[in-house]
Amino acid sequence: MSHETTTGAERSAVTEQLLSRIRDIPDHPEPGILFKDITPLLNDASALRAGVEALADPYRELGVDHVVGLEARGFILGAPVALELGAGFVPARKAGKLPAATIEQSYDLEYGTAAVEIHSDAIAPGSRVLIVDDVLATGGTGRAAVDLVHRAGGTVVGFSVLMELGALRGREKMPDVEPHVLLSV
Amino acid sequence: MSHETTTGAERSAVTEQLLSRIRDIPDHPEPGILFKDITPLLNDASALRAGVEALADPYRELGVDHVVGLEARGFILGAPVALELGAGFVPARKAGKLPAATIEQSYDLEYGTAAVEIHSDAIAPGSRVLIVDDVLATGGTGRAAVDLVHRAGGTVVGFSVLMELGALRGREKMPDVEPHVLLSV
Repeated sequence: MSHETTTGAERSAVTEQLLSRIRDIPDHPEPGILFKDITPLLNDASALRAGVEALADPYRELGVDHVVGLEARGFILGAPVALELGAGFVPARKAGKLPAATIEQSYDLEYGTAAVEIHSDAIAPGSRVLIVDDVLATGGTGRAAVDLVHRAGGTVVGFSVLMELGALRGREKMPDVEPHVLLSV
Repeated sequence: MSHETTTGAERSAVTEQLLSRIRDIPDHPEPGILFKDITPLLNDASALRAGVEALADPYRELGVDHVVGLEARGFILGAPVALELGAGFVPARKAGKLPAATIEQSYDLEYGTAAVEIHSDAIAPGSRVLIVDDVLATGGTGRAAVDLVHRAGGTVVGFSVLMELGALRGREKMPDVEPHVLLSV
């Protein structure tokens, strides 16, 4: 049991509420892809509140110091989760966007590589860090974020994500961090 | 008086707290520019909480239906303000990022133009909208966001911003929307 703060019935009602606010967009970003659009959920005050609380729930008693949110949709969910947990918020950005000294972690894309960065001084050694994103797909950015926290000397207490695209098996990239997933699609 | 929910002394203490967490980055993004980095403020749980509350304060009794946050740092502040006000959150994104049908508004840059978009169905006609961003600089994106809300049939109840770079006179682009500014630098 990892979700002690809600009962099974409450969890199920929240899941239904959140799922009803995910919109399917066919052929985006390319033909044959069914994109799962979370903007209707964000735009529903009640669903937004329920989603943020459910993302935070398993971590309320774990002493989270920082929440890392992944650019850009991870900012929208990660910042409220930080407030919910009384933690600071750390943006993990695409390479070249942060103004001060950074540490960078690259990851593989289908063709080529990309990189994500945090400020070098954002995470004090020994601090406890929760990573938040909207979607766990191939797991590339999530894995890079976990590695960045480790390199900064922090402890990853969890990876909390609104939606998992299970077919892409991103979870397998994170055997050391059991993802907390609200919706499996 | 536009900030009735805090006294002058409280306002001043919050201002001092927030200012102490803004970091100057010389010569970013180019030589001669002194960049105001808000990430230390975001990373301080107490300052983040105080900033979000102060951004929301003038609008608590105004019946805000949607908060529009501007990509990307406006997401970090706008989403918590939406939760604080019990409103839905609408991301205003750079052109080409949103998956469904959009309305787009272009604005002038020093050289050339850029554009910002919202989903066409994000703001119901007649709804009341607060726009949130981190910085009011030249006012280009803020003006574009106001125009987008108007084109969607919404009413702009305010523009709430953490920091105004007064020398760039962005406020003059918004004579119809008095910006609510926490820090003038």
